[in-house]
Amino acid sequence: MNRMKLKEQVWRANMDLAKHNLVILTWGNVSGCDRNEGIVAIKPSGISYDELMPDDIVILDLEGNIVEGALNPSSDTPAHLELYKSFEEISAVTHTHSEYATIFAQAGREIPCLGTTHADYFHGPVPVTRQILKKEVEEDYEVNTGRVIIERFSELNPLEMPAVLVAGHGPFTWGRTPDEAVKNSVALEKVAKMAWGTLLLNRECERIPGYLLKKHHQRRHGPDAYYGQKKRSKE
Amino acid sequence: MNRMKLKEQVWRANMDLAKHNLVILTWGNVSGCDRNEGIVAIKPSGISYDELMPDDIVILDLEGNIVEGALNPSSDTPAHLELYKSFEEISAVTHTHSEYATIFAQAGREIPCLGTTHADYFHGPVPVTRQILKKEVEEDYEVNTGRVIIERFSELNPLEMPAVLVAGHGPFTWGRTPDEAVKNSVALEKVAKMAWGTLLLNRECERIPGYLLKKHHQRRHGPDAYYGQKKRSKE
Amino acid sequence: MNRMKLKEQVWRANMDLAKHNLVILTWGNVSGCDRNEGIVAIKPSGISYDELMPDDIVILDLEGNIVEGALNPSSDTPAHLELYKSFEEISAVTHTHSEYATIFAQAGREIPCLGTTHADYFHGPVPVTRQILKKEVEEDYEVNTGRVIIERFSELNPLEMPAVLVAGHGPFTWGRTPDEAVKNSVALEKVAKMAWGTLLLNRECERIPGYLLKKHHQRRHGPDAYYGQKKRSKE
Amino acid sequence: MNRMKLKEQVWRANMDLAKHNLVILTWGNVSGCDRNEGIVAIKPSGISYDELMPDDIVILDLEGNIVEGALNPSSDTPAHLELYKSFEEISAVTHTHSEYATIFAQAGREIPCLGTTHADYFHGPVPVTRQILKKEVEEDYEVNTGRVIIERFSELNPLEMPAVLVAGHGPFTWGRTPDEAVKNSVALEKVAKMAWGTLLLNRECERIPGYLLKKHHQRRHGPDAYYGQKKRSKE
Repeated sequence: MNRMKLKEQVWRANMDLAKHNLVILTWGNVSGCDRNEGIVAIKPSGISYDELMPDDIVILDLEGNIVEGALNPSSDTPAHLELYKSFEEISAVTHTHSEYATIFAQAGREIPCLGTTHADYFHGPVPVTRQILKKEVEEDYEVNTGRVIIERFSELNPLEMPAVLVAGHGPFTWGRTPDEAVKNSVALEKVAKMAWGTLLLNRECERIPGYLLKKHHQRRHGPDAYYGQKKRSKE
Repeated sequence: MNRMKLKEQVWRANMDLAKHNLVILTWGNVSGCDRNEGIVAIKPSGISYDELMPDDIVILDLEGNIVEGALNPSSDTPAHLELYKSFEEISAVTHTHSEYATIFAQAGREIPCLGTTHADYFHGPVPVTRQILKKEVEEDYEVNTGRVIIERFSELNPLEMPAVLVAGHGPFTWGRTPDEAVKNSVALEKVAKMAWGTLLLNRECERIPGYLLKKHHQRRHGPDAYYGQKKRSKE
Repeated sequence: MNRMKLKEQVWRANMDLAKHNLVILTWGNVSGCDRNEGIVAIKPSGISYDELMPDDIVILDLEGNIVEGALNPSSDTPAHLELYKSFEEISAVTHTHSEYATIFAQAGREIPCLGTTHADYFHGPVPVTRQILKKEVEEDYEVNTGRVIIERFSELNPLEMPAVLVAGHGPFTWGRTPDEAVKNSVALEKVAKMAWGTLLLNRECERIPGYLLKKHHQRRHGPDAYYGQKKRSKE
Repeated sequence: MNRMKLKEQVWRANMDLAKHNLVILTWGNVSGCDRNEGIVAIKPSGISYDELMPDDIVILDLEGNIVEGALNPSSDTPAHLELYKSFEEISAVTHTHSEYATIFAQAGREIPCLGTTHADYFHGPVPVTRQILKKEVEEDYEVNTGRVIIERFSELNPLEMPAVLVAGHGPFTWGRTPDEAVKNSVALEKVAKMAWGTLLLNRECERIPGYLLKKHHQRRHGPDAYYGQKKRSKE
């Protein structure tokens, strides 16, 4: 993929975050990775979504060196790079402060799987990281934000669980493309809002049975998936 | 009704779901049934509301055989067909994951009738199904979703109660036309949101008296209905 | 005022209800009264806000006889007429099922005055009626809805308290003009939402002191009001 | 800065309040101060945001004498002037009745710092004033509203904490420019909504650790800030 196309894709994904009301002001960012070229395209830091243009997107290598672009990359870039380095199956990362996902992150609670909407996207409860430590903040805050996520995923598959809540901070999602990562952010926010509303109505609400969780996830993402139009091969 | 008109009607009803903020991404579907022709028109699976065109609507017979259309029908089609086969008075079905109706479905609670807004559309509490069983999921999940609804309606009249909550999943509504089914979805979501807000304010809130429920339902839907312009008769 | 102007004013006020997201589908109505002519203009019954035109507005006399218009008036017309007959200071009435005002009506709770936003519009807690009785529903439901409101106002001044919650139903507001009645509906909904949110955060939240309530109400509506641009005379 | 430019800036900031859904009807106001000229530009009283034009903005001196403009200034003007006189670092003030900030003000509760979104803008819990006294309301309500805020800030730095909740009333925010003051209002409302939602989910939710609060605030506002494009220096 040429760089212009990658920037265009990442720009559009960033604009979609705004369109879906997941970001305001400058709060959020999407990156996309071209695995063949070993480069990452990401939103510049502190630029309002109202003003963002495709050419503002910054390109870096996986070590964080700027390859192309006149602006500073998102201050969260080191966290994105850590995720690309550890989760080899993914090629896009999204970070937002979307309201209800952030509410769970602030409460330090995972999002339990209370319905099939959740199961369609996330195979189990959406995990929350531990709180980041003082020395981790002081040493290298953004790199260690990525590492705290990776630590939480030591026994999780990032493609089966394409989202995480960073405790006291907010959500990250990912996917195989920028568009997929954004859709996972959209789904996460809706799922979080409905879980929040359900728990306020019924604190002791039960999780859906494992067979229903598995069925909904597999009819979309499994080897014999039959949701949608295109046959998927095994992942 | 010719097929083109049925497809147009069903397409418009699907678009109205998006207009009323009851669906995002690809989450929802409306179908319409031509009882004379024995055919059903339904949204294709996994197509975004942003891109849906009238010609994308798929036509099937009541056994689920595709009669017209290049795309796969909604994965929920078998549930729609079960409802058409059992509820002979209805000619349209809507399924959404609208937020507050889904919250009640996830909480496993019926929506109590707390006000006249509810009574204008639904004659009593909106019922919730039992949880679907493991063997039902494994045997034929979508067909059995329809059957669990029908089981719940063994003593209910689908025209007096044009909505149901599938436990752990979300709402289905129906009506005599696609437009009516969509309006029932709109009303259900608003009624669910207001019931949710009322119960958070007052857990012990009382249901409205039966005579008020009956009055509001009958002034719209009874033999002497006097609400609106067309069916005005006596009074 | 000629009839065309009254119809235009009432039409615009109805459209403003939709613009402020206080109504969906056909749920709500505004009327305006020309006291000199003894006529009332009101929204027709069951017409969607998407389709409402100035010429659809129906004109009646205060006894409910149609003076002009081809459509049936709102089914709530008799309640409006009762209010005009008892509250001689008002010339416009609005009825909605706006979400948070309806939540308080369904919970059977008055809206306590928890802040200056409330005090700017409503001089004290917004009252809730008693539940309407079976015989009142059977005898003449809509007339008696008006009478239950009037009974609640036996010791209240309708200009100082231009709103009421009908138990198990929803809000009515009023004013000296259709525009003022609609603004009172807008304010009521916002005040209700903020009271709801405040009570969920702090069940024992205290009412604002009487001197602050009085100050805010008087700086807008009192004989020495200094809010806004036009000097008001005494009411 | 010439007066026309100041009025234009203040007008645009007022319109941005409406664009961000922080005000409805006439509820809110932004002022800007030209410290060199000793003048303040502010929204006129009781003018709807739908109709506000740049030329409607009123210019006063710091004692409240009108210097330019045909309309009455906002009734809250004396509170703004008090803030300019005490907080010498600020050149813009915003007042709204935005929903969730007002909910905390009505509940008489500060907004605890539950996440990094909060820390990005506000260095610690957003403070709430004491209730204003009867004699203060009677003596000079609007001046004393300003003084109650200043009293609350006796040990706070207005640039590190650019927001306050006036008990039983609503929020004020400020900044070095009208645009910055408005952005602080936008951030405050979002932070308030997420704190509200977090506390409903988890009443005992812990504040984020001090080192994380400090880190997020400093990477934006500290001497070595590296967020955004302009102030990047060391890191």
